[in-house]
Amino acid sequence: MSSLLTLTTDFGTRDAYVAAMKGTILSIHPDVRFIDISHEITPQDVMEAAFVLSEAVPYFPEETLHLVVVDPGVGTTRRPVALRHGGHTFVGPDNGLFALLLDGEPPDELVVLDRSAFWRTSDISDTFHGRDVFAPVAAHLAAGRALNDIGTPIESLKPLHWALPIDDDQGVQGWVVHVDRFGNCITNIPRPLFERQRDGRPLKCFVGNAILEGVHTTYGDTEAGEPLLLFGSSNFLEIAVNTGNASNLLDIRKGTPVNVLFKDVEPKSL
Amino acid sequence: MSSLLTLTTDFGTRDAYVAAMKGTILSIHPDVRFIDISHEITPQDVMEAAFVLSEAVPYFPEETLHLVVVDPGVGTTRRPVALRHGGHTFVGPDNGLFALLLDGEPPDELVVLDRSAFWRTSDISDTFHGRDVFAPVAAHLAAGRALNDIGTPIESLKPLHWALPIDDDQGVQGWVVHVDRFGNCITNIPRPLFERQRDGRPLKCFVGNAILEGVHTTYGDTEAGEPLLLFGSSNFLEIAVNTGNASNLLDIRKGTPVNVLFKDVEPKSL
Amino acid sequence: MSSLLTLTTDFGTRDAYVAAMKGTILSIHPDVRFIDISHEITPQDVMEAAFVLSEAVPYFPEETLHLVVVDPGVGTTRRPVALRHGGHTFVGPDNGLFALLLDGEPPDELVVLDRSAFWRTSDISDTFHGRDVFAPVAAHLAAGRALNDIGTPIESLKPLHWALPIDDDQGVQGWVVHVDRFGNCITNIPRPLFERQRDGRPLKCFVGNAILEGVHTTYGDTEAGEPLLLFGSSNFLEIAVNTGNASNLLDIRKGTPVNVLFKDVEPKSL
Repeated sequence: MSSLLTLTTDFGTRDAYVAAMKGTILSIHPDVRFIDISHEITPQDVMEAAFVLSEAVPYFPEETLHLVVVDPGVGTTRRPVALRHGGHTFVGPDNGLFALLLDGEPPDELVVLDRSAFWRTSDISDTFHGRDVFAPVAAHLAAGRALNDIGTPIESLKPLHWALPIDDDQGVQGWVVHVDRFGNCITNIPRPLFERQRDGRPLKCFVGNAILEGVHTTYGDTEAGEPLLLFGSSNFLEIAVNTGNASNLLDIRKGTPVNVLFKDVEPKSL
Repeated sequence: MSSLLTLTTDFGTRDAYVAAMKGTILSIHPDVRFIDISHEITPQDVMEAAFVLSEAVPYFPEETLHLVVVDPGVGTTRRPVALRHGGHTFVGPDNGLFALLLDGEPPDELVVLDRSAFWRTSDISDTFHGRDVFAPVAAHLAAGRALNDIGTPIESLKPLHWALPIDDDQGVQGWVVHVDRFGNCITNIPRPLFERQRDGRPLKCFVGNAILEGVHTTYGDTEAGEPLLLFGSSNFLEIAVNTGNASNLLDIRKGTPVNVLFKDVEPKSL
Repeated sequence: MSSLLTLTTDFGTRDAYVAAMKGTILSIHPDVRFIDISHEITPQDVMEAAFVLSEAVPYFPEETLHLVVVDPGVGTTRRPVALRHGGHTFVGPDNGLFALLLDGEPPDELVVLDRSAFWRTSDISDTFHGRDVFAPVAAHLAAGRALNDIGTPIESLKPLHWALPIDDDQGVQGWVVHVDRFGNCITNIPRPLFERQRDGRPLKCFVGNAILEGVHTTYGDTEAGEPLLLFGSSNFLEIAVNTGNASNLLDIRKGTPVNVLFKDVEPKSL
């Protein structure tokens, strides 16, 4: 069976960048099967890439290789790395991309990609390490090379400063971290934390131009066009509109604060 | 040879949804080859998905599996189904998605997906049956399971209310059902019906802000920038502009009426 | 190992056009692996397609097949062709698509696709040769047919009028030929020509609403938000903004002139 290799970038699908990476990989090791996770990450948005990656990787089989290139620091001192975690292998820049997946744990293995024998050329482009460093290294890993072959072990990765929600028994305050294609607004408030603080009480949620009450289980629980709160497929609190676009209707964007109050407490000013 | 599995969704390619489905499938049955038909269906537009599917499926070899997830009723009472038609197998929600392909005929086999042993987990997400029900069922079908294994036979599918054209010997009135990337406006007027009523006569076509005469065979039959009528690759009447965008130029959208009059009849008011 | 077949079109990924081509190919020769180079070429922009192709093809292994369908003249007298160059095989319309790749050299082999036995049907659509001519011919080539089987040798391709830069020892004047997803503005000024005329001297570059000095090696060489000149991964002069969008910030579009002056010469009026 061919090696499975996913790709996550901010390169888009209009330009030749993704194809140049795939061609480079196939030139080194032809027996690779590509799965595109996303090439539509907002340019240079490491946090969005970390989020999308954390929503996709858990569904892939063990021994999948993940090539991740969202790389605002390309050509500067940020380190190119490869790592093992949970039976998967990852290749990309050390800028926080893998932090949500690792969730505070150290990687099982971690190397810096300092061996130019495994690059496309020793005279690499300063602006496209995706093609000249990360893709060829991923190809060599797909071909069976060990992490210790293609790089030198290092201690730890750069942290990602992911916004954590603030919670107490009065309520939970978080932020919208992702607006999906449907306009569903996904927050950084995980279900277990929310349920523990809520403890079965009624609630009010203040977000954008809306005040929402109660938590539903699916979009069709409300009338068409009605906004609602639910825990989406990622198990984070989500603001949605049945057969509509919550982001547009309620004026919610990435970064919009979400304030949930339990009992009949008046909202703190945001 | 690996199983061929096409995907048609309204999930877009920016978020992790499509990748989560592919990873789920590969975790159950690794020997699958994916072909993306489209992930850019307008959110929750079942009719558009039915149209795009009917334009793509006939070109695939027999025994292709088609996974179709445009599912505004996810988590409600709409049924998840799998069916056989014309040597192909289809998996998706029972909401009219397959109506244009079936064209009034009953499926050769039809089951409701009521056996949670073939789902990703028995504790499925209420908002993402694509990942938790449809993808795993498709994987089991790709692995060789029969329809009777993965569900229980049912009698019939929900109909799709597709707009049919109105015709008599004076003319044909239809609607634009799809505007493609080039701005070509595809109507619901099929060539055989059109030619039968026309019977070789001259015609005038009233659509958007234009009155068009005659039917051409290809875009280059007119000057650059000139609008024209033709039967496109799908054999439906189409309004186009040579090297231009008919939708923008003539102010035509999905749903715009198209009124064709034969001889020198004055148009009925729309 | 399966045949590798890349696709480059202006069809977008929303409609069924690309899938209809892939299904047609798989119906003739199932053992093909598709790599999408781009389907987001600006509709009917042959020059953009030629550029994207020239940025991707060199990274693919020998014996890759490239199917290219950007075809404003579909159904008119422009010829459908297949050709060999540098160990790769290409199929598409003869409208200049392959000119940048060939870079003035004649193809190693060149045929016109005049044998309907290798088309999908002899009754082909006048508007979709991608599906009815180019895709089936590519499938037969993937299955091992020689160029001489599927067409008749011809002498030469239609030229593409690619804008060449104007240079002397005072400076170089060129144009922006591509704006990528990041807003990086890629010119038609190649590094060797630029360096030869520059001969180590200081320079000023007039482009859009900016005057830039010096050439950097990567985006991170300047402060965030600062515009800069560099030679990008394609080795053409490029205008970029560190972690920003040069096209928007500096008001540069495809076709915008770029005027580089060496020493302290005053700019010619553009």
